[in-house]
Amino acid sequence: GADGDDISAEDPWQDEEYFGSYGTLRLHLEMLSDKSRTETYRQVILNNSSCLRGKVLMDLGCGTGIISLFCARLAQPSAVYAVEASSMAEYTRQLVKQNGCEAVVTVLQGRAEELELPEQVDVLVSEWMGNCLLFEFMVESVLLARDRWLRKGGVMWPSSAALTLVPCQAHSYYTEKMAFWERPYGLDFTPLQPLAQQEFFTKPKFSHVIQPDDCLATPCHVISLDMYTLQVEDLEEMKGKFHFHLEKSGTFHGFTAWFAVHFESLETGGETVELNTGPSSEQTHWKQTLFMLDRPVCVHAGDSITGTIVLRRNPIWRRHMTVTLQWSVNSSSTEETDNCQVETKSFPMWR
Amino acid sequence: GADGDDISAEDPWQDEEYFGSYGTLRLHLEMLSDKSRTETYRQVILNNSSCLRGKVLMDLGCGTGIISLFCARLAQPSAVYAVEASSMAEYTRQLVKQNGCEAVVTVLQGRAEELELPEQVDVLVSEWMGNCLLFEFMVESVLLARDRWLRKGGVMWPSSAALTLVPCQAHSYYTEKMAFWERPYGLDFTPLQPLAQQEFFTKPKFSHVIQPDDCLATPCHVISLDMYTLQVEDLEEMKGKFHFHLEKSGTFHGFTAWFAVHFESLETGGETVELNTGPSSEQTHWKQTLFMLDRPVCVHAGDSITGTIVLRRNPIWRRHMTVTLQWSVNSSSTEETDNCQVETKSFPMWR
Ligand SMILES: [Ca+2]
Ligand SMILES: [Ca+2]
Repeated sequence: GADGDDISAEDPWQDEEYFGSYGTLRLHLEMLSDKSRTETYRQVILNNSSCLRGKVLMDLGCGTGIISLFCARLAQPSAVYAVEASSMAEYTRQLVKQNGCEAVVTVLQGRAEELELPEQVDVLVSEWMGNCLLFEFMVESVLLARDRWLRKGGVMWPSSAALTLVPCQAHSYYTEKMAFWERPYGLDFTPLQPLAQQEFFTKPKFSHVIQPDDCLATPCHVISLDMYTLQVEDLEEMKGKFHFHLEKSGTFHGFTAWFAVHFESLETGGETVELNTGPSSEQTHWKQTLFMLDRPVCVHAGDSITGTIVLRRNPIWRRHMTVTLQWSVNSSSTEETDNCQVETKSFPMWR
Repeated sequence: GADGDDISAEDPWQDEEYFGSYGTLRLHLEMLSDKSRTETYRQVILNNSSCLRGKVLMDLGCGTGIISLFCARLAQPSAVYAVEASSMAEYTRQLVKQNGCEAVVTVLQGRAEELELPEQVDVLVSEWMGNCLLFEFMVESVLLARDRWLRKGGVMWPSSAALTLVPCQAHSYYTEKMAFWERPYGLDFTPLQPLAQQEFFTKPKFSHVIQPDDCLATPCHVISLDMYTLQVEDLEEMKGKFHFHLEKSGTFHGFTAWFAVHFESLETGGETVELNTGPSSEQTHWKQTLFMLDRPVCVHAGDSITGTIVLRRNPIWRRHMTVTLQWSVNSSSTEETDNCQVETKSFPMWR
């Protein structure tokens, strides 16, 4: 197990832990039970079924092989290479057989980096997205596979991705974790608030469900990825800007982030399919990611919040990153400059 | 960290992990946010406030010190010794001061076994209950403290405890974890069912919430503990029997267990207070514990389910135990003997 500072004996990719967790059913069940996610991939295959005839596909990090099975059952590809690094691959092979797809789908157990295929592929499909889009950096494996195995002019699914941010209220989370200590059972527990801030507000909150009503402004795209041109080096530091005009008064508790990905059609002019994990779409297993400020701020309709977001990949722990938010609130009702001071907070995910 | 089989370098009490987790706020917040639990202890103090005047109390495993603070604020004890092994003790001291109770409440950081007090106590109060009542075996520390520090004729809070069992339906859990694989997205994923059984039904499910409607019979007390006479050796193996008459037809998916504890009054003839964690009481943070059978069984009103439960403490990992259930279903509608076969299943919690 990890020992905090001593990384000498450890794998900075933490592959044993990472692929180990995908060797159990829990995560696969969570992903498969996510209808929004899984049906989107199914819809992409279905919409493109005629164009997929005779094509070669790679399904990278295939898990139980659901996407490969959709391909084989709903289209007529000439081959699907289903690649899975975890021990789930053994079961994936059984599932392929059980569903009569073994003539089309070949399961390969191994890491993307060590992959050997008999041919280039026409389509590289993968569900690589993590919390805040990039967390766990499976996307790096996708880019390496792309550069090595996608034929010139081949198609990436998803084809593009975007990270969205919004300033928000989070009354119930704040009440539950911080205001709670003010007077529980008639007692004063405020000496625990610094501990609560450290424990609950230092890291982002995964699996947050934001209500559209708690968005203080129109959400804004802060980072966009083109899956054809994105380079592994680009992942080291990704920057975005935001400028929000507040549409209502309320309490500014933090920022919430989520992502969307897009699947272009294989047909020219065909419909692009979107998988959106935001609060206005059907809930997914990713939900949203909440970044709490140290102190809530009263804001008013007409105010604006301006700033930047930086996703900095951890130089040692390659599946981790730190999200740094920098912002200032510009009040519409005063001319004072002191309300315009720039604040900054960095959130490790998770190291 | 733990390495499975190699225990040579490890503490079988796992104290670092156990007390380490109580050094963070998360668990304390969960317990304090449990109104049913916390208000019960408050009510016990309040009901007995006149009898507590001038008494000496020990609050073992006091956490943030909430029970000690109730004592000091709602009654007039001469002293309260608040004992906490985790690093939370440092904050508990601050909370005692913040609430003006430092003249009465003394916080002692240390394990119950190494405790030194200046005097015997009249009342030993503790919230030591874990999942399925005994899990984590904090009760052992309470018994050791009782034998060493409770004066003859002193009072234990809780004074008694009981484990309750009921045969039950668990349709949604079964569907979510097992039936799911039958035909997800039109595919046959049944080859994963043995894996699902292993992963989801081998250990008990903590934090299960059973609906009263899913109880197939009247719940039955299977184990009772008298906190005055219970001995540490008794904890090695606790046995109980059950005989349920099914009141409705349905699917027998497993057994659900929960506990209740009782606080006797300091006054002769005074009211006993109960904290009940069952489905007919207000929900607590313990919720209930579900033990799934390997295969669901169709049962009918009039059938009976007879058997035994054994809680066997792990001889190495002292905070763990194995729960073994043995049962047979006696059908009311047939004379066959083969429906009366005895089944058995052992559930490690967690080793
Ligand atoms: Ca993922
Ligand atoms: Ca407890």
